[in-house]
Amino acid sequence: MNSDVPLKAVALVTTLKRSPEASSADKLAHDLGAEFEKHNVELEYVRLVDHVIKPGVEIDMKNGDEWPKIRTKIMESDILIVATPTWVGQMSSELLRAIERLDAELSKTDGEGRYQTYPKVAAVAIVGNEDGAHKITADVLQALNDVGFTWAANAATYWNGEAMHTTDYIDLHEVPEKVALANKMVAANTAHLARLLKSSNYPPVK
Amino acid sequence: MNSDVPLKAVALVTTLKRSPEASSADKLAHDLGAEFEKHNVELEYVRLVDHVIKPGVEIDMKNGDEWPKIRTKIMESDILIVATPTWVGQMSSELLRAIERLDAELSKTDGEGRYQTYPKVAAVAIVGNEDGAHKITADVLQALNDVGFTWAANAATYWNGEAMHTTDYIDLHEVPEKVALANKMVAANTAHLARLLKSSNYPPVK
Amino acid sequence: MNSDVPLKAVALVTTLKRSPEASSADKLAHDLGAEFEKHNVELEYVRLVDHVIKPGVEIDMKNGDEWPKIRTKIMESDILIVATPTWVGQMSSELLRAIERLDAELSKTDGEGRYQTYPKVAAVAIVGNEDGAHKITADVLQALNDVGFTWAANAATYWNGEAMHTTDYIDLHEVPEKVALANKMVAANTAHLARLLKSSNYPPVK
Amino acid sequence: MNSDVPLKAVALVTTLKRSPEASSADKLAHDLGAEFEKHNVELEYVRLVDHVIKPGVEIDMKNGDEWPKIRTKIMESDILIVATPTWVGQMSSELLRAIERLDAELSKTDGEGRYQTYPKVAAVAIVGNEDGAHKITADVLQALNDVGFTWAANAATYWNGEAMHTTDYIDLHEVPEKVALANKMVAANTAHLARLLKSSNYPPVK
Repeated sequence: MNSDVPLKAVALVTTLKRSPEASSADKLAHDLGAEFEKHNVELEYVRLVDHVIKPGVEIDMKNGDEWPKIRTKIMESDILIVATPTWVGQMSSELLRAIERLDAELSKTDGEGRYQTYPKVAAVAIVGNEDGAHKITADVLQALNDVGFTWAANAATYWNGEAMHTTDYIDLHEVPEKVALANKMVAANTAHLARLLKSSNYPPVK
Repeated sequence: MNSDVPLKAVALVTTLKRSPEASSADKLAHDLGAEFEKHNVELEYVRLVDHVIKPGVEIDMKNGDEWPKIRTKIMESDILIVATPTWVGQMSSELLRAIERLDAELSKTDGEGRYQTYPKVAAVAIVGNEDGAHKITADVLQALNDVGFTWAANAATYWNGEAMHTTDYIDLHEVPEKVALANKMVAANTAHLARLLKSSNYPPVK
Repeated sequence: MNSDVPLKAVALVTTLKRSPEASSADKLAHDLGAEFEKHNVELEYVRLVDHVIKPGVEIDMKNGDEWPKIRTKIMESDILIVATPTWVGQMSSELLRAIERLDAELSKTDGEGRYQTYPKVAAVAIVGNEDGAHKITADVLQALNDVGFTWAANAATYWNGEAMHTTDYIDLHEVPEKVALANKMVAANTAHLARLLKSSNYPPVK
Repeated sequence: MNSDVPLKAVALVTTLKRSPEASSADKLAHDLGAEFEKHNVELEYVRLVDHVIKPGVEIDMKNGDEWPKIRTKIMESDILIVATPTWVGQMSSELLRAIERLDAELSKTDGEGRYQTYPKVAAVAIVGNEDGAHKITADVLQALNDVGFTWAANAATYWNGEAMHTTDYIDLHEVPEKVALANKMVAANTAHLARLLKSSNYPPVK
C-alpha cells in the first residue's frame, strides 16, 4: 500500500450548535481529523446545522436546499467521517437528517450497477456527557453500510463520562489516552482500507 | 375505571412531507386516533414538518421557534402519540428533533420533584415500506420513558411490507386486520392507563 | 393508592457468572431491590445462569428445561425486574434467552383475550464498565412491552464508567448518588403503577 | 484483484433449533453461501446450538466448552458469516452468546498490536417472519466491528414478511428476487474486500 497516494475526507459535524459556538462533537472530529492528516488525508469539515438541509429523501429537495453541495463534497471524497453528540442516548437529528438524504443514493448507480458511494470508507466519532456511543455506532454503521459505505476494522472513536454525569468532552483538560489510541486506530485502518479500495473498486453488479 | 372521564391526546405526526401531501405516517396516526376516540379521548394532530422547530435541547430556542407552542399542547394532554415513517431502518429526523427538545424536561420538575411529563402515557405508530418498526419502537420507548412518559402494555402499532418491497401503507386498500387489532389494543390500554394515572399521579420524589 | 397492599417482584439476574461468583448486575439488582422493599414489595432473585434454560420459543422446551418454574415465579409476581451486565454494548445472552422464552406468551391469553403478562409492570437495571445502558434499556423496554409488560415513568436504573474504562460497579466504594436516586425513582414509580393496575387490569380485548 | 486466490469462510448459523430440524436461518445461510462459492470461497457451516458453548467472556470457559474449536475455525477463515433468526425484533441468544465470546479477542493481539481478527471481513444474513433485520444488522455490525471485523459495502442480506405475519423464509417457494440480488452483492463485495485485505493487512498499531 503506497501511503503517498493522497486521499480526501469530508467530516460532517452534526452538533446542534451553530458556529462559532464551541462543540464537543466538533472537537472530537478535529482530534480524529488530525490523525487522518498523518496518513496523508486532506480534511474538510462541514457543520451541518450552519446549512439549510431540507427534510426529505431526494438528492435535491429544492427551495434553497444546500444538501446537493454537501453531497458533492462527499462524492469527491474517499472517506466520510460523521461526528455526533449524544442526546437521550441517540445520534443527533442533524445526522439522522443527513442519513435520510443519503437514502437517495439507493436509486443512483454508476454505469456498472454500483452505488455512487462505492468504494468510499466511513468512520464515526461520538461524544456525550453520558452513555450512548455503542448504540449510535450501531445505527450509523448500519445506515451508512446500507447506502453503500464500507467500514474498516474498529471504525469508531468515542468518549462519554460516567453514568448520569454532565462533563463534556470539550471540558476535559486533555484527550484521554484511550480516546487518543482509538483515534489513531480509526484513522490508520480507515485510510488503509480507503487506499486499497480506491485502487480496486468492488466488482460490477452483474 | 370510569371511562366517562374525558382525556386529551396530541399526536405528533413526524413524516418528512409537508401538508397537504399524503403521508402514510399521518394515515396510521389517524387510524389509531379513531380508536382512541372510541375511548373518549379528544385528539389533536400536529404535523411537525409544517412548523419551525429549531435544533437544540432547550425548552425555547427563540428566533421563531415554534416548539414552545407544541410543548404546551403536550403538557395540556394526558396522552402523547408519536407517528413516524421508517427511513433506512430509523425513525424520522423530525421525531428525533422533537425527542431532543423533550430532553429539556429533565431540568423541569413540579413542586414535588416530579417531571412535568408525569403522569402522561405515550403510544407509538410506525409505518415503512419495509423493516424497522421494532427498533424504532425500542428507541422511542427508551427516549420518551427517559424524559418521563409511561408506557401501557402493547403500546406500539405498526405496518411494514415484505423485505425490500416498496408498497406504502397509504396504498393499501384497507387497514390490515392485524394492524386494526393492534390499533384497538394500543388505544384501549393507553387510555385505561392514562385514566388510572390521572386519578393517581406518581408519588413525590423525596 | 394504598401502599399497604403487598406486592411481589421477581428479579431475573442475567449475569454470565454462576453463583456464588460476585456480580455487578447482581449487586445493582439488590440495591434496586432494597428500594422496592421500602414500598412493601417482596423480592425474589433468580440468577438465570444457575439454571438450565433451553433455547427456544415455547413455554416448556422439555428435557430438563427449568424455564417453566421460573415462568411460574413471574406469573405469580406483580413486578418483573431484569438486571443485566453490558458486553460489547449489548444486554447479556442470558437475558436475551429469557426474552425469547417470553415470546411464547404471545400465544397465551386469559379468558378475555389479554396476555397472561397483564397487568405486570417491569423495571430494568443495567451495569457495565462502559457504555450501553440506554440502548439495552431500549431493547428491553421494546421486547418486554411487546410481550405484555407495562413500563412506569423512568423505569431504568444503570451505571457505567467513563468511555473505554474497566472499573466494575461492584468495585465502587459506595452506590453513586445519582444511581441511588434512580433506584428510588424506579422503585417508587414501578410499585405505584403495579398497585394501580393490580386494582384495575386492562380491559378485555373485544 | 485475482479471484483465483481461494478464500475460506465459516458461517455461524444461530438458529434456536437443533439439527436436523429445518431452519430458515440455515436456509438463508446456505443460499448466501452458494453465492460465495461462485467467488472461490470454501464454506463451512456451524450450527451453534448443536454445540456446548459456555456463557462467559473468556476464550476458553473450560468444562466441556466447545467455543475454542469454533474459534479456531474462525481464526483459520478469511470471512465470518453470521446467520440469525429474528425473535421479538432481536438477534438470537445463540448469536449474542458467540458475540460475548468474541469479546475475549479484545485482549489478544498479534506481535504488532493488531487484533487477531484482523483482517477478516464479516457478512450477516437475517430472517424473520416479521420485522427486525435492519436493527439486527446494526447490532451485529457494531459488535463485530468492535472486536475487529471489517464490513464491505452492503454487507447484509435479509428476508422478513409483512408486519405481524407468520410466514417463514423456509416456506417460500423460491428465493425472492431481491433477496437473491442481495445475496449476490454481499458475496461479491465481501469476497472482494477479503482478498484485498488478505494481500495487505491493516498497519501495525504503533
